[in-house]
Amino acid sequence: MPPEMPWYKIMREWENKVRKVVPYTPGEQPNEPDMIKLNTNENPYPPSPRVMEALLKIMPESLKLYPDPTAGTLVRALAKYHGVDESRVFVGVGSDDVLAMCFLTFFQSGKPILFPDITYSFYDVWAELFQIPYRRMRLNDNFEIELRDYISQTEESGGIIFPNPNAPTGIELEQKEIEEIVRKNHDKIVIVDEAYVDFGALSAVSLLDQYDNLIVVRTFSKSRALAGMRIGYALGSPQAIGYLNDAKYSFNSYTMDQTALAAGKASVEDEEYFREMLARVISTREWTKQELKRLGFTFPDSKANFIFASHPSCPAKQLYEALRQAHIYVRYFNKPRIDNYLRITVGTRSEMETFIKFLEKYLADAGIYSEKP
Amino acid sequence: MPPEMPWYKIMREWENKVRKVVPYTPGEQPNEPDMIKLNTNENPYPPSPRVMEALLKIMPESLKLYPDPTAGTLVRALAKYHGVDESRVFVGVGSDDVLAMCFLTFFQSGKPILFPDITYSFYDVWAELFQIPYRRMRLNDNFEIELRDYISQTEESGGIIFPNPNAPTGIELEQKEIEEIVRKNHDKIVIVDEAYVDFGALSAVSLLDQYDNLIVVRTFSKSRALAGMRIGYALGSPQAIGYLNDAKYSFNSYTMDQTALAAGKASVEDEEYFREMLARVISTREWTKQELKRLGFTFPDSKANFIFASHPSCPAKQLYEALRQAHIYVRYFNKPRIDNYLRITVGTRSEMETFIKFLEKYLADAGIYSEKP
Repeated sequence: MPPEMPWYKIMREWENKVRKVVPYTPGEQPNEPDMIKLNTNENPYPPSPRVMEALLKIMPESLKLYPDPTAGTLVRALAKYHGVDESRVFVGVGSDDVLAMCFLTFFQSGKPILFPDITYSFYDVWAELFQIPYRRMRLNDNFEIELRDYISQTEESGGIIFPNPNAPTGIELEQKEIEEIVRKNHDKIVIVDEAYVDFGALSAVSLLDQYDNLIVVRTFSKSRALAGMRIGYALGSPQAIGYLNDAKYSFNSYTMDQTALAAGKASVEDEEYFREMLARVISTREWTKQELKRLGFTFPDSKANFIFASHPSCPAKQLYEALRQAHIYVRYFNKPRIDNYLRITVGTRSEMETFIKFLEKYLADAGIYSEKP
Repeated sequence: MPPEMPWYKIMREWENKVRKVVPYTPGEQPNEPDMIKLNTNENPYPPSPRVMEALLKIMPESLKLYPDPTAGTLVRALAKYHGVDESRVFVGVGSDDVLAMCFLTFFQSGKPILFPDITYSFYDVWAELFQIPYRRMRLNDNFEIELRDYISQTEESGGIIFPNPNAPTGIELEQKEIEEIVRKNHDKIVIVDEAYVDFGALSAVSLLDQYDNLIVVRTFSKSRALAGMRIGYALGSPQAIGYLNDAKYSFNSYTMDQTALAAGKASVEDEEYFREMLARVISTREWTKQELKRLGFTFPDSKANFIFASHPSCPAKQLYEALRQAHIYVRYFNKPRIDNYLRITVGTRSEMETFIKFLEKYLADAGIYSEKP
């Protein structure tokens, strides 16, 4: 080797046997006392007080034992909550784990799976991980899913997945369009990723009884304020859920720890707190929409706990940087078609007031906005 | 379809796109008040009291936030514990998660990886999951790894993995033999799975400074009595750990929940309790060996928290069933070469006394054993 080559650039012999991926920097998780964190769609409120009570009740003796591999306590709580049989519930370590398991299990035809070009950023990652071909279907210019993309030439595709509401747009797809996609694609699994559905969209859960090719995936990270506990689940036909469990048990039986099972169950059992928390987030979202509109922003009508907004006179990237300087963190995607948008998580009313106040002053100072007399 | 065909046998159209695996029944997790559970190598003692203290200190407010994707608190605690740089530590959801990630990351040459024919039962599962060819190298008739299998024709293999001590035999491979395997295979990753090493075997951690192709994998499920919390880790060269992190971040940034991170850190920081707990298990294991020998059992000299025992006059399967009837659960493998063995986890001294008393009476009743006067 040439002597000027630094040691860390020397390729080791074993490295030619290694799987190399484009190094990825995890999303920013700032931790400053005065920050306003509107960048990762977390809930601004804590989880149900029953969650902490459940954690306090865990016996040290029990931690020495493996968790129940069937995750029975949580599966039963979710089955009861949704009024379905336990055989229709699959749980995992956050919806990312559940979704990855669905990709591995259901999308094995060799035909391309379909999902929107603007959507959750991990769909293409899992497809590549499991060597599943895929096609990105272009949203229309209003960022809406075009129904015809998913119901014509259905024999050519191997599966379908989309979030409802979609991310990062927040746009809800109508129930009758979802049903048409599921019905016309009866020969493959259709996954509806309902990470944000609790914030006001209509769930496809009511379609499960009629269509055994439908899988609905949910997470506890957003509406249940438990991002820190990694809990997700899928609902589907007993046949489909059976395949998921077979796959899971075949290579890792014990995935969810005992605290996650207890926390998840406690959350599901506190419907009153859940509804109150959701109502607050929704009310703050609607207030924030009005204020953003007043400041000249445009945005699709979000049914999620975030707003995907653009300003005609001020570049999103510039706003993102300015907000960051003020310790207000929102999400900016440097990607085609959406690089002039900010994804703004709905925080508490007080956080959103500070956020709006900042924008108002910033746009005024830039000569873009002035309050009408 | 023929009318006599039951509905559940009707193949749905979407099922031809599904990944089918041999359905697997997870290990028995009996839960009876009077049972003696010696079947899954759990620790008979609870985890350090500091673990519960750490769980009690978790703030409800923090659970709404995603966990630190770098798992910083736990990585730092482990780095300090082993006296290595943080860049040499990778953590995951139990050692099964860590090992699967290692298979995916390091065994991509297309050449077969090598592991023993009698060993941890998930190695072939992960190899098949990730389409990695593999060869099972036959243990000798004393159930020992044959060094020559792993150091000759090294150019033909794509990687090596074995547990030390091996499971389910409990046999330790000598340090100098491990070093020879690692040295002769410098062009590939060698993984030493040290799930049971704390119970008295010599760790390969001391070799890490010299060999950047060595990965040592550990779990909190056995020696740290935290099977219920799903915590595992790998130690290796900064380069190798970097590849693991790249792979992990690329498809799931948030795997370990906040309680697991806190519990893991607290356990690592209580060395005194850890050493005392290990000493008790080891002392009970040695007592149990003597007693089993007295009853006529033969077994390899285990350095783990289990004993792999066979009786020349009483079939293992029969003993397994008899113990089960008495609510004493041990592990029986209905597999070639080991189907006359029981894997007996070391429980508390009192549990093992009950276990030995049962065997003594059972063998006496069967006319196999009678105490010498």
